[in-house]
Amino acid sequence: MKTVSIGAGNLAANLLQALQNAGFEVAQIYSRTEESAKTLAELLNVPYTVDIGSIIGDASIYFVSVSDDAIETVVESLPPTKGLIVHTAGSVSVDVFEGRAQNYGVLYPLQTFSKSRPISFSDIPIFIEANTQDNLQILSAVAKAISNRVYHASSAARAQLHLAAVFGCNFVNHLYHLSAQIARQAGFDFDILSPLILETTNKALAAGNPDEVQTGPAARNDQKIMQKHLKMLSSKPEWKEIYSILSENIRKVKNEELIMKNLE
Amino acid sequence: MKTVSIGAGNLAANLLQALQNAGFEVAQIYSRTEESAKTLAELLNVPYTVDIGSIIGDASIYFVSVSDDAIETVVESLPPTKGLIVHTAGSVSVDVFEGRAQNYGVLYPLQTFSKSRPISFSDIPIFIEANTQDNLQILSAVAKAISNRVYHASSAARAQLHLAAVFGCNFVNHLYHLSAQIARQAGFDFDILSPLILETTNKALAAGNPDEVQTGPAARNDQKIMQKHLKMLSSKPEWKEIYSILSENIRKVKNEELIMKNLE
Repeated sequence: MKTVSIGAGNLAANLLQALQNAGFEVAQIYSRTEESAKTLAELLNVPYTVDIGSIIGDASIYFVSVSDDAIETVVESLPPTKGLIVHTAGSVSVDVFEGRAQNYGVLYPLQTFSKSRPISFSDIPIFIEANTQDNLQILSAVAKAISNRVYHASSAARAQLHLAAVFGCNFVNHLYHLSAQIARQAGFDFDILSPLILETTNKALAAGNPDEVQTGPAARNDQKIMQKHLKMLSSKPEWKEIYSILSENIRKVKNEELIMKNLE
Repeated sequence: MKTVSIGAGNLAANLLQALQNAGFEVAQIYSRTEESAKTLAELLNVPYTVDIGSIIGDASIYFVSVSDDAIETVVESLPPTKGLIVHTAGSVSVDVFEGRAQNYGVLYPLQTFSKSRPISFSDIPIFIEANTQDNLQILSAVAKAISNRVYHASSAARAQLHLAAVFGCNFVNHLYHLSAQIARQAGFDFDILSPLILETTNKALAAGNPDEVQTGPAARNDQKIMQKHLKMLSSKPEWKEIYSILSENIRKVKNEELIMKNLE
């Protein structure tokens, strides 16, 4: 099955390698950035182009892995094709293709990708959606060739999953950044937090319900420590605000649990 | 070396097992909660008491692993002893012992403990502090017997590390909780986020500087997606507030980096 990649970013780089490993032919890579296109094309030994007019029309699947805002424009610039046109974005509805393509769908891998950290696709949950049952079946076969965890999800469910990912990945990483800076103030590297951070993550995943394993001053309503922490953060108003809001919300969840327990 | 544990909570349970494994004698466990004292005492095959007046006076080290507020009172109730009295709290100054004990110190393991998840102490960073050089040497030897990562840290540095832990562990876990709830709204379990969450954590730890690997709508200033997310959160004002504040702070950090780059 002949595939084409529109886009040569982190997601495309990882997806195309997984497709090649599963025996798919990657026939062409397009990117408006020559450097990205060339680097990835050389890595995968595939022709590339920076001219959107030169994209071939006879591929079976076109993976559109460009920034959300660019999807519409890119799709309108594609050559006439009967191939399946698929974007890989979490928050863009499948309707973006309506009136712009004949066969279309979405293949969204729920993962954070870097070029420098190649990642095995086999455990990555992939969420698919398509405009017809036939196209959904094709997409399902492709997704199952690269991952063991393939699900059908509507555009609305996919957008929720993307939002969940922002909390569980992007925001978590920002808390790591704050935590690293606070550790540095004490004279230690971020690495000092590594056993704690790994255990926190593993414990939450093992529990299945992270709320069950919530610990810390806010969870036990230790006002004395929280006041001390807020005082320590007085020169960093943003950090202080983040501390207050997250602590208040942890308290709120714990209080709601108590109320529910008393009602039982 | 004969040790006594004042407290039978999660930290005590893990610490005492590590001490026993390293060949220390745990001579007695005290807890005001009979159930905790008994369960842990039976597990470790050690005598226990719920009567603070019955704590033996001839131990070499007393580990005080009770809630922060209880440390002062507990120490005042101990029998007269030449033994080293050590608390294990992050945010309590070593001065809590002043005028209350002859030989004292702190041994703070930077980790989150559960009774149901026994954990190897060997990689846990342990921060020690004591009232004399001799006591510091004793404490250092004890800490090094159970961990490969032993550091001397002042009470102020230790409090910073505890604050860093609140951000990197307690707050992160709360974000996992929110993320799990959002995924459930889409019809999926928290487990669906597991590959993403593990990769996020491993990537940040590998980078050493989590800010370098920050991704997501806020990092790339994707206003359209952020507005969409805020709209999706409109029925949950607290989650919306957390989303806004963390996104704003991610933006702020990125903007500061741009300014610094332009100044170079």
